[in-house]
Amino acid sequence: MTLGLGLLGCGTVGGALVDLIAEQPGLEIRQVAVRSTTKARASAIDPDLLTTNAEAVVGRSDVDIVVEVIGGIEPARSLILAALRAGKPVVTANKELIANCGAELLEAADAEGVDLHFEAAVAGAIPIVRALRASLRGESIQRITGIVNGTTNYILTKMTEDGAEYGTALAEAQRLGYAERDPTADVEGFDAGAKAAIMASIAFNANVVAGDVFHEGISAVTSSDIDFAQRLGYKIKLLAIAEQFTDGDERKSSVGVRVHPAMVPDSHPLASVRDSFNAVFVEGAASGELMFYGRGAGGEPTASAVLGDVIDAAAALKLGGHRPIAVGGRVPIMPIDDLPSAFCVNLLVRDEPGVLAQVAGALGTNGVSIRAMEQHDIAGGNDSARLIFITHAAPERQLRTTLAAFGELDVVLGIDSVLRVLGD
Amino acid sequence: MTLGLGLLGCGTVGGALVDLIAEQPGLEIRQVAVRSTTKARASAIDPDLLTTNAEAVVGRSDVDIVVEVIGGIEPARSLILAALRAGKPVVTANKELIANCGAELLEAADAEGVDLHFEAAVAGAIPIVRALRASLRGESIQRITGIVNGTTNYILTKMTEDGAEYGTALAEAQRLGYAERDPTADVEGFDAGAKAAIMASIAFNANVVAGDVFHEGISAVTSSDIDFAQRLGYKIKLLAIAEQFTDGDERKSSVGVRVHPAMVPDSHPLASVRDSFNAVFVEGAASGELMFYGRGAGGEPTASAVLGDVIDAAAALKLGGHRPIAVGGRVPIMPIDDLPSAFCVNLLVRDEPGVLAQVAGALGTNGVSIRAMEQHDIAGGNDSARLIFITHAAPERQLRTTLAAFGELDVVLGIDSVLRVLGD
Repeated sequence: MTLGLGLLGCGTVGGALVDLIAEQPGLEIRQVAVRSTTKARASAIDPDLLTTNAEAVVGRSDVDIVVEVIGGIEPARSLILAALRAGKPVVTANKELIANCGAELLEAADAEGVDLHFEAAVAGAIPIVRALRASLRGESIQRITGIVNGTTNYILTKMTEDGAEYGTALAEAQRLGYAERDPTADVEGFDAGAKAAIMASIAFNANVVAGDVFHEGISAVTSSDIDFAQRLGYKIKLLAIAEQFTDGDERKSSVGVRVHPAMVPDSHPLASVRDSFNAVFVEGAASGELMFYGRGAGGEPTASAVLGDVIDAAAALKLGGHRPIAVGGRVPIMPIDDLPSAFCVNLLVRDEPGVLAQVAGALGTNGVSIRAMEQHDIAGGNDSARLIFITHAAPERQLRTTLAAFGELDVVLGIDSVLRVLGD
Repeated sequence: MTLGLGLLGCGTVGGALVDLIAEQPGLEIRQVAVRSTTKARASAIDPDLLTTNAEAVVGRSDVDIVVEVIGGIEPARSLILAALRAGKPVVTANKELIANCGAELLEAADAEGVDLHFEAAVAGAIPIVRALRASLRGESIQRITGIVNGTTNYILTKMTEDGAEYGTALAEAQRLGYAERDPTADVEGFDAGAKAAIMASIAFNANVVAGDVFHEGISAVTSSDIDFAQRLGYKIKLLAIAEQFTDGDERKSSVGVRVHPAMVPDSHPLASVRDSFNAVFVEGAASGELMFYGRGAGGEPTASAVLGDVIDAAAALKLGGHRPIAVGGRVPIMPIDDLPSAFCVNLLVRDEPGVLAQVAGALGTNGVSIRAMEQHDIAGGNDSARLIFITHAAPERQLRTTLAAFGELDVVLGIDSVLRVLGD
């Protein structure tokens, strides 16, 4: 029995998928919806399969499974809903759609008794969605920390390894096709934020959407930040972090989701994730630390994830029944002000007695405690010195009031950098 | 609807599982088969659940899913077969059994239309079995390279980071409970070999058994091997490698499965897997490089993998039907003599003109080509020098005949070390 696929979109991922499906027994692409049927295409697709009528592809009686790789909210959302309502399982690679409308789509899928798969929406070829949905279903997950944007990881790797400035590394990434001409979605953390929302939703059984995620991008990271972090034994990475806070009372649980650059200790497995690779680090109560590493983008790796989902959908069609993903309700989202982070602060101070006491006093008054501190003389720096300290995790609000207090101190000549630190 | 579990075995993994199941809605342990009902146990298990009659546990009408964590071939095999024949899905953590009798058990499961799950048999909490079975089902997997034995990775990490000799590091591992009093199964590569056989079977859809795996352990690795590798930019790791060789003709495909120490370049993700952690590196045609990292042993991490399987089995029971794992046939196993490896060879040679030509001649005659070479003078070494080279991959037989040819050369004073190298 051969199952028919209807493919919506035939860009980089769709084209790679056409080639992969051609090698799979029991699967056949019946029609492909595209914007232009005359455009030249890299993959060996039969031109007779192309149509501009996406609704018709969804509606064909010989299309058993619908694969959506158009991207964006509409028309992808309406097409997927139409497919689900026609009782057809859907496989999508659309992170923006799932991060914004995932609950609606999953509820529609469950109402129709069919499956909605979206492994490729998070971290390309890395099977993190299946790991969270299936392998870790019974696990109490405490935190997920991911490098889930290849463009920014490539830029930060170039800055770290070649000493490039941000602008130069971004231009190089654009030249190689790793970054878009308008790089905002990547470098400002929107892309990583959508993936964080999806992972948080599955891991914590909650409805977390893209808009819930705090994000700060990498455009303000300087090569001197990177040098400074390296000297202390850290790499700077753009992290997507999803955490659950229960304080021992499930009814009062809240979720924190954020994307920002952070210093990652060299000994941490995420520190060695280079170039455009992605990795997701999961901390579970029983499983301990897990990490999933691989290609987070690109036509073939993403198509590989779509293919895994298509095979799963095909198996489920043969079995009958479906395996719903429970859609959790909305949960309190902890605002960034309340989220705990450790910080590394680099202060320029007067080199005179009593400075440390004043700085430590400002920290203590604001409830921030110090994990490590070092003082450096500055060559030719006359009366000034450098004070570098790493704090224990404290709510971000407290760090901000601490920095304001530093600004009031005569002995503090400047706050040269403030970076979040992974760990603690 | 609550599903009943019958637990066979209640050691470290079983005890941890009892605690995890207690927190899961819809699952309940109905009875636990143990060797002694009077032994003190760490987990908060109801003593009334204990019995020494394992057959009775399998046969109970209120046991819907059987979980086997006894280990070893018998009685585990007979109990699992009895459960499957009674139409009950089975979850097992038993690598020895699956690596030796997996095909028989999977065929029995398929004949009865029930599922056999064994995520915990390979690499503890790391969901590599589900990744290979589901996410990568359609992927053409070229090679799997794993650090899948925590004991040996702990020993090698201690040797690398503390400069410990093998015997000292082993004793430390035994003191901490990472190594058994008889460490043979771990340090000689039998444990890793069983896991390699299981991974090869799933990835290549072939029936590969433990006895097919070539293994060489770490007991001959010296601290000077480790120093030498580190100076060249490599870490020594015990690798389990499963490869498929097709030469473009699927009918002539064969599988290579082996466990041996190898030099892993510092830039490779496997090089940074420290202590008792495990990791599995997968190379797929479309997916590219993937790595799965985590705790490969221990009660809680292993129980976490068992729990994921139990939840999967429970979902399948509610749905009806089952998802068989295709059992491939026996395939030609490529003997170690024919398996390609790159090697690093450290020769002591006379420091005189023409030496390099003679050494290079012996390599060329035996069809081994050189990727990199360096010559070092030896302080106070009068007429001798050190020649270190890394070869391209060549069948192991050719390396052996090359080494024999070196032995015939007057200019070669000694072969100080020969280590396999990952890569190429």
